[in-house]
Amino acid sequence: MRPDLITRIRQLLPAHHPRPEIELLYRMMLDYPERGGKGVRSELLLLSARAHGVSEGTPNRSSAGWEAAMWLATTLELFQNWVLIHDDIADDSEERRGLPALHRQYGVPLALNAGDALHAYMWGALQKAEVPAAYAEILNMIHRTAEGQHLDLAWVQQAQWNLSAADYLDMVRLKTAYYTVVVPLRLGAIAAGRHPDVRFEEAGIALGAAFQIRDDVLNLSGEAAQYGKEIGGDLLEGKRTLIVLRWLELATPQQKETFLAEMNKPRPAKRPEVIAQLHAWLLESGAVTYAQGVADAQAERGLKLLALALSAAPDQEAAQTILKLAEGLARREA
Amino acid sequence: MRPDLITRIRQLLPAHHPRPEIELLYRMMLDYPERGGKGVRSELLLLSARAHGVSEGTPNRSSAGWEAAMWLATTLELFQNWVLIHDDIADDSEERRGLPALHRQYGVPLALNAGDALHAYMWGALQKAEVPAAYAEILNMIHRTAEGQHLDLAWVQQAQWNLSAADYLDMVRLKTAYYTVVVPLRLGAIAAGRHPDVRFEEAGIALGAAFQIRDDVLNLSGEAAQYGKEIGGDLLEGKRTLIVLRWLELATPQQKETFLAEMNKPRPAKRPEVIAQLHAWLLESGAVTYAQGVADAQAERGLKLLALALSAAPDQEAAQTILKLAEGLARREA
Repeated sequence: MRPDLITRIRQLLPAHHPRPEIELLYRMMLDYPERGGKGVRSELLLLSARAHGVSEGTPNRSSAGWEAAMWLATTLELFQNWVLIHDDIADDSEERRGLPALHRQYGVPLALNAGDALHAYMWGALQKAEVPAAYAEILNMIHRTAEGQHLDLAWVQQAQWNLSAADYLDMVRLKTAYYTVVVPLRLGAIAAGRHPDVRFEEAGIALGAAFQIRDDVLNLSGEAAQYGKEIGGDLLEGKRTLIVLRWLELATPQQKETFLAEMNKPRPAKRPEVIAQLHAWLLESGAVTYAQGVADAQAERGLKLLALALSAAPDQEAAQTILKLAEGLARREA
Repeated sequence: MRPDLITRIRQLLPAHHPRPEIELLYRMMLDYPERGGKGVRSELLLLSARAHGVSEGTPNRSSAGWEAAMWLATTLELFQNWVLIHDDIADDSEERRGLPALHRQYGVPLALNAGDALHAYMWGALQKAEVPAAYAEILNMIHRTAEGQHLDLAWVQQAQWNLSAADYLDMVRLKTAYYTVVVPLRLGAIAAGRHPDVRFEEAGIALGAAFQIRDDVLNLSGEAAQYGKEIGGDLLEGKRTLIVLRWLELATPQQKETFLAEMNKPRPAKRPEVIAQLHAWLLESGAVTYAQGVADAQAERGLKLLALALSAAPDQEAAQTILKLAEGLARREA
C-alpha cells in the first residue's frame, strides 16, 4: 500500500503504554499492515475519488475531499488486515505475506483479540474521514463479506462438496467482490460528494469474481515467492474453488473417492503425498483452464460495465487508470 | 435484558436469506442475545439517561432522548454478546448462560465469523441512535476492553503467575470496568445531551473491579444453576484472579509446585482430581475472604463517588435506583 497510508495507520494506532504486555498488543495490530499488502483496494478507492473530481493536491496542501478519501482508504486497509488475522485463524493458515500467520506466532487467543482491536480502530479511521454517507457503505461491506466468509466456512464444516459453479460464484461475490471492488469504487464517488453510479455494483461483482478465481488459480499453480502464501494451501484447507468443483465433475469415481476421503480429515492428518497427487490431478484435468475461462468472461463483462459506469466521470485520465488497474486485478499474475 | 431491547436486536439483524447456510449465520448471531443475559449494562445506561433528564414516555410515544438511549443500550448489549462469543473461543469455555458455548456447537471458524458479523451490527445499532458524541465513547470502550482482554490472555500465554494485586486490578479495570460501568453511566448522560460527570470514570472503575472480583468469587464458590457457567471454570482456564494470586502468597512450596505444574498443562491434559484439590485449597485458604474484602472496599469507594457524581442529576429518583443497581452489581450473588 501507499507509504502515506501506513503513516496514517501508525498515527491512528497507539504505540506506547506503561505496561509492556499492552505494547505487545499494539505491535500485533501493526504486524500485518507493516508486512506491506499490495493495497489494491485503497488504490482503487483513491483513483475513484480522483475520477469523480477530487484533486490530490500536494502533500502539505491536500483538498478536503482528498483528506476524506485518504482516511476512507485507510479504513479499507484496516478492514482487510483485521479480516486477514481472523481468516488465518479460521483456516489455520501457516503463512501470510511470506511470514508466519499472526496466530502461529502468538497463539489463537491473542491474535483473535488483536483482530478485534484492529476492527475497532478501523471505525476510528472512518470517524477521521468525516463522511457520514460512508458509514452505511462500510456496514454493507462487512455484512456481505461476513456472509461470504460464513458460506465458505459452512461448506467446509458441513463437508459439502455437492456444489455448482453458481454456488461458488454466490460465495465469492459476497466474500471478495464487495470489499475488493464494489465498495472501493462507491466510496471514491462518495468522498467526492457524488452518488455512485449504480453499475459499480454489477461491474464490481464480476471483477471481484474474476479476481478471486485468479487467486484460486495462483494458489494451485503460482510462484510462492510472488504469491506470498503456500502454494496448494487452499487444497490443504479444503477450500471450495471453481477448479475443484469442476474437477469433481471430470474425475473418475476412484479419484473422487480418494479426494473426499482426504478432505474429510483434519488438516494435520492430511498426508502430503495424497495432497500432491490431488494437486497433480487438478493441474492435469483441464479444470484450471476452465476456471480461467470463467475468470476471463467475468473480467470482460466487468470491464465493459465499468467503462460505461465511468464514461461520464469528470476526470477521464483517472477513469482510464481505474480500468487498467481493474484489468490487472481481474487478470492478476500474483 | 429488557424484552424491548431484544426486540430491537431482532429488528436490526436480518432473519431471512435465500441461502439456508446464510440463515444459519443469522441464527448464530441471535443465539447468545436470545439466551437472555441479565442486561445490567443496558439497564445502567437507561437509568443514567433517566437520571440526566430523559423521560421514558409510553411505549408508542417515547421521547427522542429515550429512543437514542434505547439504541445505545442495544449497542451495549450487542457489544457484550460479540465479545462473549470471542472470549469463549479464546478461553475454550464449555458453557455460556447454561448452554454450550457457540464454538462448541458450530466450531471455531463459524463462531469467530459470527462474532465479527455481530460486531458490525453493533455499529449499525449505534448509527440508529444518532448521537454523534457516543461514537468516541464506544471506540474508547472497545479499545480499553481489548487491552484488558489482551493483558489477561498474555499472562496465560506467557505462563505469568508472578503478579500483584495491583496487576490484577489494572487488568480488570480495563477488561471489565469500562464496558460494565464507566461507559454505560457516561452514555446515559450523553443520550440526555449532557456532559458526563468526570467522577463517573473513577467510580465506575472501582465498581467494575468489585463486580469482577465478585465474579471470580462466584466462579469458585457459586451455584452453577444461578451463575450460568461451570463452577471452577476459571481454574481450568488458568485465569489470574485475585483469589489465586493471594493464595500463591499463602501456599506451601509444595502446593505452589502442584499448582504451577497443573496450570502449565493445556486444558484437556488437566486432571479433574488435581483441579478439585486446588479448588479445595483455594476455598480453605482464606484467599476468598481476602478477595471479598478487596471487593467490598472497592464497592464502598465506588458507591461514595457515584453518589457524589449523581448528586446534582435532575431526576433523583432514578439516581437512587442507579445507586441500588450499582450496589447489587458490586455485591452480586449471581
